[in-house]
Amino acid sequence: MTKPILTMMLGERVRIMRPPGGFAPGSDAVLLAAACPARAGASVLDLGCGAGAAMLCVAARVPGVELTGLDVHRDSVGWAGRNLDDNCADGAALHGDVADPPAAVRARQFDHVICNPPYFTEGSASPDPAREAARRGLDLGPWLQTARRRVAPKGSVTFITRADRLADVLAGMEGLGGIAILPLAPRAGQPAGRVIVQGRKGARAPLKILPPFVLHRGDAHQDGDRHTPEARAVLRDAAPLPLT
Amino acid sequence: MTKPILTMMLGERVRIMRPPGGFAPGSDAVLLAAACPARAGASVLDLGCGAGAAMLCVAARVPGVELTGLDVHRDSVGWAGRNLDDNCADGAALHGDVADPPAAVRARQFDHVICNPPYFTEGSASPDPAREAARRGLDLGPWLQTARRRVAPKGSVTFITRADRLADVLAGMEGLGGIAILPLAPRAGQPAGRVIVQGRKGARAPLKILPPFVLHRGDAHQDGDRHTPEARAVLRDAAPLPLT
Repeated sequence: MTKPILTMMLGERVRIMRPPGGFAPGSDAVLLAAACPARAGASVLDLGCGAGAAMLCVAARVPGVELTGLDVHRDSVGWAGRNLDDNCADGAALHGDVADPPAAVRARQFDHVICNPPYFTEGSASPDPAREAARRGLDLGPWLQTARRRVAPKGSVTFITRADRLADVLAGMEGLGGIAILPLAPRAGQPAGRVIVQGRKGARAPLKILPPFVLHRGDAHQDGDRHTPEARAVLRDAAPLPLT
Repeated sequence: MTKPILTMMLGERVRIMRPPGGFAPGSDAVLLAAACPARAGASVLDLGCGAGAAMLCVAARVPGVELTGLDVHRDSVGWAGRNLDDNCADGAALHGDVADPPAAVRARQFDHVICNPPYFTEGSASPDPAREAARRGLDLGPWLQTARRRVAPKGSVTFITRADRLADVLAGMEGLGGIAILPLAPRAGQPAGRVIVQGRKGARAPLKILPPFVLHRGDAHQDGDRHTPEARAVLRDAAPLPLT
């Protein structure tokens, strides 16, 4: 049996074990978790939870949250369950398709839904629309539909995606209100690489485009990854990243 | 007969006459025009042209463009025609509904389409969806459909709107490629007040969220309206505002 890999996140507040070859949890999960406006005791559903990094980062910041992770890969679900235990978090990891969730998820609602959908960045754009869609990642529509259906009134739905999926995410958030868009820029003055989009069920506030959240200082990539103070606060010190 | 009002735009490069009570042309028209990637000799269609400010700002920057303005208000069309003459611009202002354009527009395509749709900012949000939609402005869908249909292959469609209409504009740009989003922020670190969205017919580049274009210096509104150097270059010196 191969030895699992341990990643420490949020300044060692969160321990994530995964098998060799599994996706390494990264800053996306931490940023997503920081943007989730959960308060103490809230329930949180993590769609496509993988090994549980995002939901466990919520739990590290907010006391007493109840976590539900859903993933189509049985291996991931197993690791997410183990990581829930290792991090002394309250909740469960469930096996199932996000587009067609199991009864345990369908039967209830959650105060907050978070999602860091899988995507691919390999290769160059294809002229064939179907190939290009596959290359760019899965159809987010069913994932957003599940999120909208499972979120409780006044609850939030928060997605982090590549910036080029913004139109798809906004289309899928139709029906939610108070939409807030937070572009994540690798450096000041650069186009966003990723984007966090949040909506609230029953809110009526108009859509808002927030100023970009800048991740790195300096003009170009350097060794030693110098985060901005704001990014460091979120990624290392478990500061919230409110979309207000 | 009441005396018309003259507004000088782009550092006196453009003269716009309008009747008292008509909408004053403002920075939106100039910013929209600056974002239009027209080259010398290109044809430009201005949907809802009013007195012609936006298209005439394109003509002031780009030599030899051929302008077509379309507006549902006969008065505006009259003034737009007069302003075309006064500014020695090549083109015509036509009367018609943007959602159902006249034959002279339907019969051809244009290298570039620009649009600064009318909207209202008065009053507070209404809980009634239909009232709220009316308050927030017209349904942009038919306007975007006309833009998509009338733009030539490789041509561009550029809209400037309130930031809270972003989802509507993106939905209406479906089918165009190379979508670029430029948030316009009143000040650095503030949410966008308006947004420019551009798409290109036949382009395949992924959607891009550009860093915000900041209009004013300082932390709060002050008398004397201190523009940033970048905004001043666009608003006074006719610099382009490329969405790249």
